[in-house]
Amino acid sequence: MIDYPGILAEIYDAVQPLLAQGKVADYIPELAHISPDKFGMAVQTVGGELYCIGDAAEKFSVQSVSKAFTLTMAMRLEGDAIWRRVGREPSGTAFNSLVQLEYENGIPRNPFINAGALVVMDMILSHYPDAKQAVLDFVRLLSGSEGIGFDTAVAQSEKSTGYRNAALAYFLKSFGNLQNHPEEVLDAYFHHCSLAMSCVEVAQAGMFLANDGRLPWDGQVILSRSQAKYVKALMQTCGTYDAVGDFAYRVGLPGKSGVGGGILAIMPDVFSVCVWSPGLNAQGNSLAGTKALELLTTLTAISIF
Amino acid sequence: MIDYPGILAEIYDAVQPLLAQGKVADYIPELAHISPDKFGMAVQTVGGELYCIGDAAEKFSVQSVSKAFTLTMAMRLEGDAIWRRVGREPSGTAFNSLVQLEYENGIPRNPFINAGALVVMDMILSHYPDAKQAVLDFVRLLSGSEGIGFDTAVAQSEKSTGYRNAALAYFLKSFGNLQNHPEEVLDAYFHHCSLAMSCVEVAQAGMFLANDGRLPWDGQVILSRSQAKYVKALMQTCGTYDAVGDFAYRVGLPGKSGVGGGILAIMPDVFSVCVWSPGLNAQGNSLAGTKALELLTTLTAISIF
Amino acid sequence: MIDYPGILAEIYDAVQPLLAQGKVADYIPELAHISPDKFGMAVQTVGGELYCIGDAAEKFSVQSVSKAFTLTMAMRLEGDAIWRRVGREPSGTAFNSLVQLEYENGIPRNPFINAGALVVMDMILSHYPDAKQAVLDFVRLLSGSEGIGFDTAVAQSEKSTGYRNAALAYFLKSFGNLQNHPEEVLDAYFHHCSLAMSCVEVAQAGMFLANDGRLPWDGQVILSRSQAKYVKALMQTCGTYDAVGDFAYRVGLPGKSGVGGGILAIMPDVFSVCVWSPGLNAQGNSLAGTKALELLTTLTAISIF
Amino acid sequence: MIDYPGILAEIYDAVQPLLAQGKVADYIPELAHISPDKFGMAVQTVGGELYCIGDAAEKFSVQSVSKAFTLTMAMRLEGDAIWRRVGREPSGTAFNSLVQLEYENGIPRNPFINAGALVVMDMILSHYPDAKQAVLDFVRLLSGSEGIGFDTAVAQSEKSTGYRNAALAYFLKSFGNLQNHPEEVLDAYFHHCSLAMSCVEVAQAGMFLANDGRLPWDGQVILSRSQAKYVKALMQTCGTYDAVGDFAYRVGLPGKSGVGGGILAIMPDVFSVCVWSPGLNAQGNSLAGTKALELLTTLTAISIF
Repeated sequence: MIDYPGILAEIYDAVQPLLAQGKVADYIPELAHISPDKFGMAVQTVGGELYCIGDAAEKFSVQSVSKAFTLTMAMRLEGDAIWRRVGREPSGTAFNSLVQLEYENGIPRNPFINAGALVVMDMILSHYPDAKQAVLDFVRLLSGSEGIGFDTAVAQSEKSTGYRNAALAYFLKSFGNLQNHPEEVLDAYFHHCSLAMSCVEVAQAGMFLANDGRLPWDGQVILSRSQAKYVKALMQTCGTYDAVGDFAYRVGLPGKSGVGGGILAIMPDVFSVCVWSPGLNAQGNSLAGTKALELLTTLTAISIF
Repeated sequence: MIDYPGILAEIYDAVQPLLAQGKVADYIPELAHISPDKFGMAVQTVGGELYCIGDAAEKFSVQSVSKAFTLTMAMRLEGDAIWRRVGREPSGTAFNSLVQLEYENGIPRNPFINAGALVVMDMILSHYPDAKQAVLDFVRLLSGSEGIGFDTAVAQSEKSTGYRNAALAYFLKSFGNLQNHPEEVLDAYFHHCSLAMSCVEVAQAGMFLANDGRLPWDGQVILSRSQAKYVKALMQTCGTYDAVGDFAYRVGLPGKSGVGGGILAIMPDVFSVCVWSPGLNAQGNSLAGTKALELLTTLTAISIF
Repeated sequence: MIDYPGILAEIYDAVQPLLAQGKVADYIPELAHISPDKFGMAVQTVGGELYCIGDAAEKFSVQSVSKAFTLTMAMRLEGDAIWRRVGREPSGTAFNSLVQLEYENGIPRNPFINAGALVVMDMILSHYPDAKQAVLDFVRLLSGSEGIGFDTAVAQSEKSTGYRNAALAYFLKSFGNLQNHPEEVLDAYFHHCSLAMSCVEVAQAGMFLANDGRLPWDGQVILSRSQAKYVKALMQTCGTYDAVGDFAYRVGLPGKSGVGGGILAIMPDVFSVCVWSPGLNAQGNSLAGTKALELLTTLTAISIF
Repeated sequence: MIDYPGILAEIYDAVQPLLAQGKVADYIPELAHISPDKFGMAVQTVGGELYCIGDAAEKFSVQSVSKAFTLTMAMRLEGDAIWRRVGREPSGTAFNSLVQLEYENGIPRNPFINAGALVVMDMILSHYPDAKQAVLDFVRLLSGSEGIGFDTAVAQSEKSTGYRNAALAYFLKSFGNLQNHPEEVLDAYFHHCSLAMSCVEVAQAGMFLANDGRLPWDGQVILSRSQAKYVKALMQTCGTYDAVGDFAYRVGLPGKSGVGGGILAIMPDVFSVCVWSPGLNAQGNSLAGTKALELLTTLTAISIF
């Protein structure tokens, strides 16, 4: 029997000195205001228990964590056809690099770098003219929480400063790898990055990955067992920017991080966990959050390795 | 005494079999309609003679040839300050590459690749809110021809398909190397590419370069002697896309080419020449036009080397 | 209870049609002679059972599979200090690329690309003047098999044609990231690639990774539990060339492949498996071997995800 | 009439404060000992006058200046066939970069970057088993000076530290673009870099380029008029490392520089000039030497532009 409450308390104490060491993302003006003191963590087990600590119920900007959910949508809509337009290998370059795209003719390396997520959003747009609402509906379904919405101030903030993402979108379009207009894709993209969710909601939304593709509360199939495995494999190899090796090395769980400071990680058949702390390390992942997950796998002696 | 009429006639005959070998640019839909049979050439000497052959009086889309003129404008407006925002070295990569820009933090390698020309246009925009009119006025001044205008159908055609240039503009903006909005810069950029000029007009517009910076007909100083030398040096090392070595090797004159099939070349203190033939070689320079210039320097035994 | 014998038999039948589809590595002349019909597989469980099928007892050239063992040696010798000279991130480029090395000043991306393995071998050389014997002793210890040796014809064959690896070694030396002479490092490197082992021996040698760092038969500690996790994390993110995403996606086990057609894969706390089939897929991993492992995780319903 | 003695005297005074600003190359240990105070300049006119100042008669290590002479040898031996194995475009990258070579499959961008010069030396080796003697004979012929030799201490010094060049040679070999063994090519390469010549000798050796391919003293044809033009065009576009644009901009003559601090420049039909000053600028060209040439073209009002 694992003493989750005790372990969470121990983690909470251990990370306090680290909170000041991370750097809050400031390239999105609205995110720069967040207090670096925040720390929340929620563990949802497949057995049905929920363990929380700190600011686990506070909404934060999930940013790229949402890419795990939009990838899932695209897999449901297009199946294996998505791999004709996006790869599934680590990029070995920065998450917003255009270099690889030029050398590889507009096919992004994987769905979790920005270029790949723009292609994924383009796929969703081709199925749903109101892609933003479709994303919202889907994340509400995954998490079982109707209270999830976009933070439009953040979306607007990203849009007005997101020249690099605009460059990526126009570059993809120049290779013919966007079907919709770049401005439409960017609008939907910036919105899905601005999803405001709590650690509890993110951990819930990840439960289908811990549960072989099914929502645990009603058995609804989100993805096949095999597809769910695929999403976890991609999180493992491509989910934490240019630090997947380091994350695998230290944490040993498939995870997806965002510059808002959130990280979703999955222990298959055991739990889904979300941690949030806004201060980032040099690779753009939550500094205290990564440490918290490292402690979780060490203290529980549970990891995929 | 050089027999220019005889030499032009010999060149005209020699290039006829080559006209069908080039490939008319088709990525700009409006340009794809041009007949590959066209060939014109105009030599304007500093002594005041003008020699023409073929379609030398017919307007064509000058495209990147205009970059020599906008660089000149920027040098007049900002002097050596322009080199803080754009380099003056050959790029070693394609004219529309984003790779170098990423590795070198948004400073284009030179003013003649697309990224560099966008920065130059941004400089002009910061001085002239109506940059398009300013460019038009300046080219009319250089050529002494009031009949020069934009081909708005071409400008519109480029704008609606120019995703790669849009990617470059947004990428530059993300590095802080555009002061104006990317869409404004792109609009002015696509217009200056669409300038419709004849070989005679282009050759005239290049005369200040052959004449140490001054308009030969009234002595007006466009650039200082030293600045004019700089523009020619840049044409020599960066003016013909990723074929400057080959162009120097075969032609031996500083030149600036465009995908419309025009090439402006300068023999300092002797002549300014413009050749036009729409079929391009693999490097994007006019195939018959490059051959014509090679023959010109061979038959006249005049080159800078 | 898993029916390993039945599953192996099913796999054996399923891969027969695939054997002819792979391409035997021919850039090492000695390897080009191997028959593509070979297929062997050995599963060693932590419970002590060994299950084999096909050519599981036949020696083959392990090539890069040995990188998992030399990395382990270096971790024992130098601990975390090794990460000052080699990274632990996927490279996103070919296993023998020099590009990344130039951009990142001679620090290879990870220990499993050739450049990284050369640095690892240099570390071993600095501790053991007779590095080749030291590697041999260590692999014999890991596998419990005294019958393991080098195939010197293969080593010689690689040495006389291995210009690309020589380029990598001299390049590393130019950055100061080799302490020993490049020729010495290359000699040791080519020898460790030429280790001749059977599927059974490789599976045995991987047992300490399945068993939290200890040899299961006598409890000897090879690596700490945490270090063993690190090696598995690196295999997961960097172990199968530029196909780690695809391998994770399809197989879902940490693995290390070699161009000899062998793959070692680990299911923590359950088994170590080695498969061998010389025909390679486009990414350089055994074609039938990858399929066999995919079937193994599907039919046993065991994977890390 | 140009007052060369007066102009050289003016240049000599003007560059004195600059001598201390350059940085003597220290990556070749033997070169690090040279005093930065040295400055010599020799102008040899096609009319037969020789004008010298400073240390113009002192031997220095010509290093890459010799690449102009070995290229000439290769053009005599193989004609246009050399362009199948080496390009003639600026590289846009550092003179010793391996990146371009990897992307362009082992074809160096031009004969003046190290990779290209290694291929040129390989061509010479294929014709002359004693390539070193052949190079020596040829440079003695060009300069009319029997007193030219190798500085074997410099050659040895380069060989024992030239790991980067060794990496280039093995990399070229791996692409099949060397016919001889890399060690042989490197030995000949390091020797030709170590040629010890005075400014007077280098300026003499460049006279055939100023004189349309012929030795002025006896009319011997070294290259055809057209081939001589080609060499000058390559010097113009590729001769001064990653600073050809800047050199063209400031000096306006085709030139070839070396890290020993020498620069050979040619004014076609007028003069050949060599300047030497060991302190280098950030691009690896002689700092005072570049300034001296800039002053020469300014004060004489002679340049190719």
